[in-house]
Amino acid sequence: MALLLIRQDKKYDSWLQALKKDAHFKVYTPETIKDPAEIKMALTWQAPVGSYANYPNLQVIGSMGAGVDHLFEDPSLPQDVTLTRVVDEKLSGDMQEFVLTLCLSHIKNLNSYAQLQEQTLWKPLKYSRISEVSVGILGFGTLGQAVGKKLSSVGFQVSGWSQSTKDVLGIKSFTGDQLDAFLEGCDILVCLLPLTEDTRGILNARLFKKLPQGAYLINVARGGHLNETDLITALDNGNISGAALDVFQTEPLPEDHAFWGREEILMTPHVASVSNAASVAPQVIENYRRMEAGEELLDQVSREKRY
Amino acid sequence: MALLLIRQDKKYDSWLQALKKDAHFKVYTPETIKDPAEIKMALTWQAPVGSYANYPNLQVIGSMGAGVDHLFEDPSLPQDVTLTRVVDEKLSGDMQEFVLTLCLSHIKNLNSYAQLQEQTLWKPLKYSRISEVSVGILGFGTLGQAVGKKLSSVGFQVSGWSQSTKDVLGIKSFTGDQLDAFLEGCDILVCLLPLTEDTRGILNARLFKKLPQGAYLINVARGGHLNETDLITALDNGNISGAALDVFQTEPLPEDHAFWGREEILMTPHVASVSNAASVAPQVIENYRRMEAGEELLDQVSREKRY
Repeated sequence: MALLLIRQDKKYDSWLQALKKDAHFKVYTPETIKDPAEIKMALTWQAPVGSYANYPNLQVIGSMGAGVDHLFEDPSLPQDVTLTRVVDEKLSGDMQEFVLTLCLSHIKNLNSYAQLQEQTLWKPLKYSRISEVSVGILGFGTLGQAVGKKLSSVGFQVSGWSQSTKDVLGIKSFTGDQLDAFLEGCDILVCLLPLTEDTRGILNARLFKKLPQGAYLINVARGGHLNETDLITALDNGNISGAALDVFQTEPLPEDHAFWGREEILMTPHVASVSNAASVAPQVIENYRRMEAGEELLDQVSREKRY
Repeated sequence: MALLLIRQDKKYDSWLQALKKDAHFKVYTPETIKDPAEIKMALTWQAPVGSYANYPNLQVIGSMGAGVDHLFEDPSLPQDVTLTRVVDEKLSGDMQEFVLTLCLSHIKNLNSYAQLQEQTLWKPLKYSRISEVSVGILGFGTLGQAVGKKLSSVGFQVSGWSQSTKDVLGIKSFTGDQLDAFLEGCDILVCLLPLTEDTRGILNARLFKKLPQGAYLINVARGGHLNETDLITALDNGNISGAALDVFQTEPLPEDHAFWGREEILMTPHVASVSNAASVAPQVIENYRRMEAGEELLDQVSREKRY
């Protein structure tokens, strides 16, 4: 019995190395597997559509990252397998650091000063202190709460929005139909939602209008959350003053995309957090053991909620 | 008896407002004073040379900020007056926030990503985590320790260098002749020294060579600390990989200065921390009371150490 790695980009080396070190089971890739019946678990990242068809004994499909939207993009995803994802402390630490950096860089005007420098302009801009700035976390699950706690510990006023109420010290939690009330209080809005049919395109003109005039947008979740045309319009009319985007509808971002030329947008090439095979491997090995023992798996994904 | 405000830039409004609100003494400016014999204390920022000559009863000269180098630049500074400076929590909070922002922005490559964006280039750069980065605080006094504690609380490895040993939890303290050993361990060097004859030009080729190859420099102290020509050379030969500079030999920076065109330098127009009249006024009022009562003044400046 064995585990199969599937990635569209075929970057298998770090995963093979991390898993083979401690695993009690065999690890294959689509290129090396000889007997498909051997595969009981697949560990995948953006697998090509139809990748799971040939494995009659597949019981579990695990995402290599926190996001699982790539699983549901395959209409042939088997209905009878258990789905899991990764809850990785390193990944959540990376996201904390990156969002903190983007919030600070924004309120201290670093990107604007760099642009003034190019114009040989010495010009002090509006001075903001951390304690004066409110940050709203849209998507207040495991990752959102970790980021919220970090921002709060540094002194930002933090609130969070999610489907169910979360009880986090010093952070105001909004749920479901309180979205508008939540948005009204956000100087900075950070999107950390899972990508589902309910959240696709949620960062759109309607939502932007509920934010305070001139709010700042940070999207470190998925490109599919953002209506890119609506963002350009909101920047043009001042509804949104600027944005930091780490994810895009199409990655790498096409060369003719309007975002490249916008000074109010700070773009990073999907680098907020990096899934680390070595740190994730123990969770995969534990879940494989649980699967064999017939125990409940860790970090299961709901097919209904899609996260 | 009265207090005199003196500033070269004549920006008196916020100070007049803040002091007049609670002061039991009169407050003048050089433009409004009628009887110079009335002045017992002067509160100054970059006063024109010779400003103090006409006040026969002057007992105290206070700096409006943490820095006092501007006082000693006036050779006619009276010898028999007590000198004070400001130790302001807000000012130290501002500096903590600003240095934290610069360190994070550097390790997460935000400025480099903005430059890649201008070239329409999608290119992930080296990934660094906070815990992997060591920051050295050159000038580990009140302000330096506050900044060091903040960086340490966020997860950076922090060390400090100053004349006397400082005992700060989690931070390695170097003194006097241990400068080279201190510099060897700095991925990022933050200058927070007072500007004295000993520290003028201390950020020079000799010091840069003691840093690890490709270290990053942050100067938020005074322009006089930096040998600007040596920095250009160190950037050219890779000794220093980049710098964030908030202060300059001449401010505003002259339009033909070489720094403007250097992408590895992130320049800000002396905005790291802003002296806040409202937050400083109570200290001034208390020192005025102490002066009248013949008590020891707060935050006195040593003429020998010049800080």
